[in-house]
Amino acid sequence: MNRAFLIEQIRNKKSFLCIGLDTDPEKIPPHLLQEDDPAYTFNKSIIEATSDLCVAYKPNTAFYEANGVAGWNSLQKTIAYIPSDLFVIADAKRADIGNTSDRYAKAIFEGLDADAITLHPYMGYDSIKPFLEYAEKWAILLALTSNNGCQDFQMLDLTNGSEKLFEKVLKVSKTWAEPDKMMYVIGATHPEAFVKVRKIVPDHFLLVPGIGAQGGSLAEVVRYGANDEVGLLVNASRSILYASSGTDFAEAARKEALKIRDEMSVFVDQILKD
Amino acid sequence: MNRAFLIEQIRNKKSFLCIGLDTDPEKIPPHLLQEDDPAYTFNKSIIEATSDLCVAYKPNTAFYEANGVAGWNSLQKTIAYIPSDLFVIADAKRADIGNTSDRYAKAIFEGLDADAITLHPYMGYDSIKPFLEYAEKWAILLALTSNNGCQDFQMLDLTNGSEKLFEKVLKVSKTWAEPDKMMYVIGATHPEAFVKVRKIVPDHFLLVPGIGAQGGSLAEVVRYGANDEVGLLVNASRSILYASSGTDFAEAARKEALKIRDEMSVFVDQILKD
Repeated sequence: MNRAFLIEQIRNKKSFLCIGLDTDPEKIPPHLLQEDDPAYTFNKSIIEATSDLCVAYKPNTAFYEANGVAGWNSLQKTIAYIPSDLFVIADAKRADIGNTSDRYAKAIFEGLDADAITLHPYMGYDSIKPFLEYAEKWAILLALTSNNGCQDFQMLDLTNGSEKLFEKVLKVSKTWAEPDKMMYVIGATHPEAFVKVRKIVPDHFLLVPGIGAQGGSLAEVVRYGANDEVGLLVNASRSILYASSGTDFAEAARKEALKIRDEMSVFVDQILKD
Repeated sequence: MNRAFLIEQIRNKKSFLCIGLDTDPEKIPPHLLQEDDPAYTFNKSIIEATSDLCVAYKPNTAFYEANGVAGWNSLQKTIAYIPSDLFVIADAKRADIGNTSDRYAKAIFEGLDADAITLHPYMGYDSIKPFLEYAEKWAILLALTSNNGCQDFQMLDLTNGSEKLFEKVLKVSKTWAEPDKMMYVIGATHPEAFVKVRKIVPDHFLLVPGIGAQGGSLAEVVRYGANDEVGLLVNASRSILYASSGTDFAEAARKEALKIRDEMSVFVDQILKD
């Protein structure tokens, strides 16, 4: 998917919501467990109930790999079921030496036909490059993540004392690709960091996890992180997926997604007013 | 597998060779492509031809994921076929927030029953912790990788100017687990760095890619990287797997593995003489 189309979707839907399909067989409604493929059945219902409210879905590969061959199959079917006007992010957090990243790019961009993949920056440019060689596919680099562990390395001060590792990651990696092929993960749990981030990468989309179950605030993310094209995909996973464990799970998920979309629509109107 | 058993295997086999099962359907001998599961058939022959010469196998998950569901199936069958006295490393280079890393640990340690997994350190302690909670399973952290991209971030100087990011990764992460649950990836392409590495982590095993196709020297790795229990697993992948593209591929792979084992046996005798 190209950047103009993604922005168009945000404008049309008045939403920059990304729904994380972190589908865990231990958490989905018990009545689905008798289905042939419970995770896929669950995802189908979630997608049907929410696809008009969000612009992206983000299945996290871990939840599928945990079920081995059957899980990979659920993942493949899920992505194939997502309507083509939605942006699909394989939240896979990969990266390896060039000839190996090349295989991951094939797996995610050709095999699964996702639009984007999340990547660890630690191994540097040649580990990311293979993902940049596909037209209208995106590399989404981890910069400042939403978990406590971000303090261990991402927040370290570099030599000159004027920047932290995550800022250096942004500065270096933004030279690798234009904002139409690269995005960054910035956790909603660091509203104060968005100001610094936007100084370095004013035009890139930011994929923002951490609202909902992890406690970040949407209003703060928009306040400090939005640019004049919105430039945000804000993710919620557990708060939507597991809003109910009954037979009304899809309806409850829709209600949660609607709450977020309604909050977002005000921001979209403000930002994208012609 | 526990540490004592691994060292025992090194002593018995006079080898610290790890063979990387980076099995690429585009590179395996063409006559295998008519098989039901070419990658698995290839791996079986490689394992049969080399399992007395190495102490570990390291399938890289990328090469299997590139074939989707069928690939994950080949990977599962390959790991199940490896004799239980060999150490199995899932070279998956994962790591995510805690509740997600937990799913990867389940996929790799329970689903595939691998002994170890390679991990990106960028997201910090809570992204690694779930892998440390399995008895006799190992987390192998990327510290200094063998590719050019290691210069981009791993080699950055931190505030005090006295250490680089990869050294900080070693110093911080070694407090997370004992050397019987954690190893580090240090590329063979940096012999000079092994001295620094050994000052920080004298007792940990180092998984060393980069000899063979990537050009590192085994003698230098041993000289600067071995400790008094050897403390090294040195990996070769392409130089062994693709030694011949004919029907003699397994024999040719054995010959390559034997060359490395013979060089290693001299070092093992020197280091582990009673």
